Amino acid sequence: MKKLNFLDTGFLLAESREQPMHVGGVALYTLPDGADAQTFLNNIAGIMRDTDTLQPPFGDRLKMGPLGLLGNVHWEADPAMDIDYHIRHSALPGPGRYRELFNLVSRLHSTLLDRKRPLWEMHLIEGLQNRQFAVYTKTHHAAVDGARSIHLSRSMLSNSPDARLQDSPLSTASWERYRATLGERPRRGLSDREIRNVAEVLKARFDSGANLFSAVKRFANAWAGNDDALALPFLKVPRSSINTSIDGARRFVAQTWPFARIHAVGKAFDGTFNDAVLAMCAGALRTYLQNHTELPDESLKAMVPVSLREEGDIDSSNAVAAISADLATNIADPAQRFAAIQASMRAGKAFYKGMSAAEVQAISLLMQVPGMLLMPLGLASRLPPFNTVISNVPGIRETMYWNGARLDGSYPASIVTEGVALNITLVSYDQNVDFGIMACRRSIPQAQRIIDYMEDALTELEDAAGLTSARKTAAPRRSAKAKTKAKPRAKVAPKAKVAATGKAKPKPKPKPKPKPKAKPKAKAKAKAKAKVKTKAKAKAKAKAKARVKPKSAAGKKPTTRPSRKK
Amino acid sequence: MKKLNFLDTGFLLAESREQPMHVGGVALYTLPDGADAQTFLNNIAGIMRDTDTLQPPFGDRLKMGPLGLLGNVHWEADPAMDIDYHIRHSALPGPGRYRELFNLVSRLHSTLLDRKRPLWEMHLIEGLQNRQFAVYTKTHHAAVDGARSIHLSRSMLSNSPDARLQDSPLSTASWERYRATLGERPRRGLSDREIRNVAEVLKARFDSGANLFSAVKRFANAWAGNDDALALPFLKVPRSSINTSIDGARRFVAQTWPFARIHAVGKAFDGTFNDAVLAMCAGALRTYLQNHTELPDESLKAMVPVSLREEGDIDSSNAVAAISADLATNIADPAQRFAAIQASMRAGKAFYKGMSAAEVQAISLLMQVPGMLLMPLGLASRLPPFNTVISNVPGIRETMYWNGARLDGSYPASIVTEGVALNITLVSYDQNVDFGIMACRRSIPQAQRIIDYMEDALTELEDAAGLTSARKTAAPRRSAKAKTKAKPRAKVAPKAKVAATGKAKPKPKPKPKPKPKAKPKAKAKAKAKAKVKTKAKAKAKAKAKARVKPKSAAGKKPTTRPSRKK
Repeated sequence: MKKLNFLDTGFLLAESREQPMHVGGVALYTLPDGADAQTFLNNIAGIMRDTDTLQPPFGDRLKMGPLGLLGNVHWEADPAMDIDYHIRHSALPGPGRYRELFNLVSRLHSTLLDRKRPLWEMHLIEGLQNRQFAVYTKTHHAAVDGARSIHLSRSMLSNSPDARLQDSPLSTASWERYRATLGERPRRGLSDREIRNVAEVLKARFDSGANLFSAVKRFANAWAGNDDALALPFLKVPRSSINTSIDGARRFVAQTWPFARIHAVGKAFDGTFNDAVLAMCAGALRTYLQNHTELPDESLKAMVPVSLREEGDIDSSNAVAAISADLATNIADPAQRFAAIQASMRAGKAFYKGMSAAEVQAISLLMQVPGMLLMPLGLASRLPPFNTVISNVPGIRETMYWNGARLDGSYPASIVTEGVALNITLVSYDQNVDFGIMACRRSIPQAQRIIDYMEDALTELEDAAGLTSARKTAAPRRSAKAKTKAKPRAKVAPKAKVAATGKAKPKPKPKPKPKPKAKPKAKAKAKAKAKVKTKAKAKAKAKAKARVKPKSAAGKKPTTRPSRKK
Repeated sequence: MKKLNFLDTGFLLAESREQPMHVGGVALYTLPDGADAQTFLNNIAGIMRDTDTLQPPFGDRLKMGPLGLLGNVHWEADPAMDIDYHIRHSALPGPGRYRELFNLVSRLHSTLLDRKRPLWEMHLIEGLQNRQFAVYTKTHHAAVDGARSIHLSRSMLSNSPDARLQDSPLSTASWERYRATLGERPRRGLSDREIRNVAEVLKARFDSGANLFSAVKRFANAWAGNDDALALPFLKVPRSSINTSIDGARRFVAQTWPFARIHAVGKAFDGTFNDAVLAMCAGALRTYLQNHTELPDESLKAMVPVSLREEGDIDSSNAVAAISADLATNIADPAQRFAAIQASMRAGKAFYKGMSAAEVQAISLLMQVPGMLLMPLGLASRLPPFNTVISNVPGIRETMYWNGARLDGSYPASIVTEGVALNITLVSYDQNVDFGIMACRRSIPQAQRIIDYMEDALTELEDAAGLTSARKTAAPRRSAKAKTKAKPRAKVAPKAKVAATGKAKPKPKPKPKPKPKAKPKAKAKAKAKAKVKTKAKAKAKAKAKARVKPKSAAGKKPTTRPSRKK
């Protein structure tokens, strides 16, 4: 019987009907050529239902003493493991677009896992168009952390379409096989002492309800030996509709962008890929809040986990630090916004300079949980530790297969917490970046708009970086869109029509077309180049844009897989 | 703002993750000729989404003060009514049998309603075979009681396939129109004093945790002026696997029988239709417990709500009394079992003799809630007030239509409570009786078997009543079945095969074929008749049996609509 550590128990304690604490994702696959959907899915379900050798804790349930979650909590083998309960077969209503998929995933992600059983579910979903199927998984954060989830999904995939695994990815055999292929050492866990330091703060709250705010600050300062405001949560965090009391229903939307596009923006501004992601999200959030006439004067802050690994450094390879990034949503100019974001990220990383991997991990865990700590005090929505979470998870950079079915995309489905009603998580996969956006259904009723605004923000950044000269054609389109913002329902009819005619349907295998090779090393250079761009190039850019806009009836969207519109 | 009465609040208080307190059902429809499934369902969804005029409490959410559920609770209009949240579109995975439908309904019934929203959901389900679709509804018991549910479903149905309603059954307009068509006076609610008497007992528990058991007895005796053991819960209630601690997951199965078949058995034994239903269920439970080698020495008791209306009595028309019926599961002989059940039902009704409708209702409410009362004490699974609930709801005795879609069956989905892991509810509809069985997934993993055993029990009763001479052919089949009981998985493969070949698919409109007219007035008479039965008749009977057994590859099941096998 393995004992849960204090943090894992914390995820259970923090859970409520309004705030399920499970993480998961949706993977999109294309059936192997010639395979029958029913047969293939039944076969996969059969493999998944092989329960004899489940690795912990997939066959384990929670075991508590008389103190419940406040006492010691262990994992014990479920004596009546009911695998059919966990492996489920679902289907989408017609016409089987991504819209229907996201609707279903939103619902599935809104329900609590059963605490009397092993804390996971897997849903095989049929009914998608173009020979695709989807797999939605949810696992309690107390059972499996992010790193483990990624290892699990990797262990079941192969870069060969001909590879076949006859045991469940959740089996011990699969895990052992995968572990043997890992070139690097497994992550070192936190030491007892390190956990205890984090635990003490958590405990202080649960035992006494004492002054948590100062405790968190004191703790952070003690670790860091300084007081760098940029890296600490709670400071200068404005309020918005994203930072309200949440309810139990979720909205999930997802979208794919070419990695190269975002990467080029980062490079053009002398920043990182992650800086570009943040700038793209920041621009989208600025537009979203503007359209809800509630853009705060102060900039939004995002909790951003970043890897601190340096070249050749293996030991700290899993040192993921939580940085409270300034999203500069109060800055109108995209280039200036990028610069401000970049500066805050650099300051955030500097904050962790000199810490051991374990120290970084401990303090980062603490930073990620203040929402949990504040909830029992009813403070989270009044004192959000940050406005949102933007998490970039490194993924696999080649095409992968699950028993011959090609993985088309993999979209994270994360947690929203009291006071932080929006989570943006992205995974790089193959030539793409797959974004999964999880939102509280009531607080953010138009989550799907954020996807549109992200594309707008990326275009704006490309324009600012001189990666295109299509800025003039872009401008009127964007303002035309702005006009429709007052009537959210107005978009439904025409889009439904587009979908019905099949024009907006994504291609089964949208191989991303690399953009025309315009890779300026710096902004100035890029601008100079922009001047010599031919008309033909501008046209190509306009075309490329049309592609990612499902509103365009002619759009084929080769680079964007799902796009939920409503 | 309408205040919830104490009982409705009790349903909220009694609710937990393991014990959702919503009721509902699944209605099966056949699409009108020529109608396209997608178009028809979208049209129906559109009608349902007309939110302007929702009748209370379908547009209302709970409003509580600082005391929460322990203080006053009101309904208040939901300021952000999100109708898309409540009206949902779902689909079944292939091959779209009733098995897939029941799987989905089991899952949907297992999740809690969101307390921050109006307490109902409606799921339009596509993907069934034979042009059928299903509608699953769930509504919190605090929001709508059984009588209201029936009125609601009646208000949307018509006996004409050509009738079209353009407003939602949940709209005020629909309700007003329906009320106008009612020939009888609306039900008189309980007076404040009557509610208070019930409430006092409930309160005694919540305030003091005092001796509940004696309080319940005292209360019941005070009302009744006597102490008829047969009609009181808690007395001589044996324990079984049906009476354990429940978890949050459900198994739902459903089946249809011809009304005439069950009615004939009741008549043959000089009993009522309801007596025959109880005998059929009792036989099934006896077999189920025998096969789990845990048949208690003492007979199981069922909580049975019965109508006490007498001919011409309009005032007490809704006086539904709760009787604790002796199911005589310890008696092997079906005729003797029937007699014992009948006697206990008569005694139960006698217990209520001379009470006003309101008195009957008050005491019956109390009898139905002891499970709720015992739960906070953790006693329900150790001291079950009864072993199961068998509830017979009178329905509509003609074919009905919803905007042209023929209603093929209507299966109640009720509540299981701590200590009472099984609920059998039935509705008469058209020429049939539709049974819905709700069970705790863990406590009763083979709920679908109960359906088979009910058919066996009915056959056994028919044989005992001399309604058939096919007893000899029945015996070997039943014992052959008993042999497979030890390996529950053994049945899956052959059944899946049968389904895949389409042989077991139910007909879209299974017009029940009336059985050969053998209506003996009494047992003796019937037996005499049985002697002169021709061989041809026995054959016909054997054939009829084959029909209701989906295992039989040749079976067409014209009289049984859904039958979930696993």
